[in-house]
Amino acid sequence: MGRISTARDRLLDSACELMNIRGYAAIGVAEICARADVRKGSFYHFFESKQALTVEVVDTHWQAQRVAWHERLTGPEPASERLQRLIAWLVETQREAWQVSGRVGGCLLGNLAAELSDQEADVQKRLTSAFDEQTELVHTTLIDGAQDGSIAPAYADWATARAVVAHVEGAVLLAKLAGNLRSLDDLWPHVRRLVRLD
Amino acid sequence: MGRISTARDRLLDSACELMNIRGYAAIGVAEICARADVRKGSFYHFFESKQALTVEVVDTHWQAQRVAWHERLTGPEPASERLQRLIAWLVETQREAWQVSGRVGGCLLGNLAAELSDQEADVQKRLTSAFDEQTELVHTTLIDGAQDGSIAPAYADWATARAVVAHVEGAVLLAKLAGNLRSLDDLWPHVRRLVRLD
Repeated sequence: MGRISTARDRLLDSACELMNIRGYAAIGVAEICARADVRKGSFYHFFESKQALTVEVVDTHWQAQRVAWHERLTGPEPASERLQRLIAWLVETQREAWQVSGRVGGCLLGNLAAELSDQEADVQKRLTSAFDEQTELVHTTLIDGAQDGSIAPAYADWATARAVVAHVEGAVLLAKLAGNLRSLDDLWPHVRRLVRLD
Repeated sequence: MGRISTARDRLLDSACELMNIRGYAAIGVAEICARADVRKGSFYHFFESKQALTVEVVDTHWQAQRVAWHERLTGPEPASERLQRLIAWLVETQREAWQVSGRVGGCLLGNLAAELSDQEADVQKRLTSAFDEQTELVHTTLIDGAQDGSIAPAYADWATARAVVAHVEGAVLLAKLAGNLRSLDDLWPHVRRLVRLD
């Protein structure tokens, strides 16, 4: 955050941090404002509602994640290696958060999806887009793999890409519940099976 | 519910229904009581708190589910077929709920895990037990499969069983977010890959 952050940025950061720990419904505007050191009256200058803020939290979070996903999935290496790099990075981000906080935060997007689903239509729309983009990024990599010979063409389909995204979500959720990252040691071996690398 | 249900059962049913749609934090004791047609004063006669009620919701829900899991995973058929029967039944329960409500409820246990995690220690403990038992039931079936020859022994390990449970959770979560069950058509083919049935 630092000195140059605006009140708006601080509200977004605070909401993101709080929702990562306690979800959507448990967090109120007053608490977000207190953490951000912003007066409640100012909140509504920036955001129409908690839902509107959450839409921006999802967008901001995914835009940053998307850059990282794209980076890991792009390069001269065989597509299977790039996919492995993405999975390793996803596990590493959970490990870094765990080292800082002593807890497994899990996936903010997945947590909000589980809690809200069809309860907040605008948030649901953004979450759906984010997971569709994740699937598309993996799908493109699988297609690259079918071309460079590192992935069997029969497994370079959209449904397999979706299965990879779903598998990561499920594995991270169980790690979050367990409060430790041990089960994520197997994440790549299991994703390898889904894309039939061995 | 019906005439013979007690106030306690009605409170459990109502909490289960409401939390399945809107999660934990969004639901208050007053709303649970109103839906159950029970006076708020009576609530605290049966349950110490919303957390205590939720522990029982998780227990009641998983006890019923466990019977169904055990039924699908038990029988004279090869273990791989029993596993397929479990997955088909899990998809069918989502479909039945969708036909009744027009929405994909997802997995109550997974949704609560995503929302609460380490926020409510007693609930977390019960959720952890439920997912451990799911994993154990699948693991036992994989071991059966290694013995009856329907599953390769190298894939009859606890980590693979955990991966199957995680995969189901992730896939059901994305179906819930999408609001339709199309992606679950591929659930069994993808679980087959995790246990290396093809």
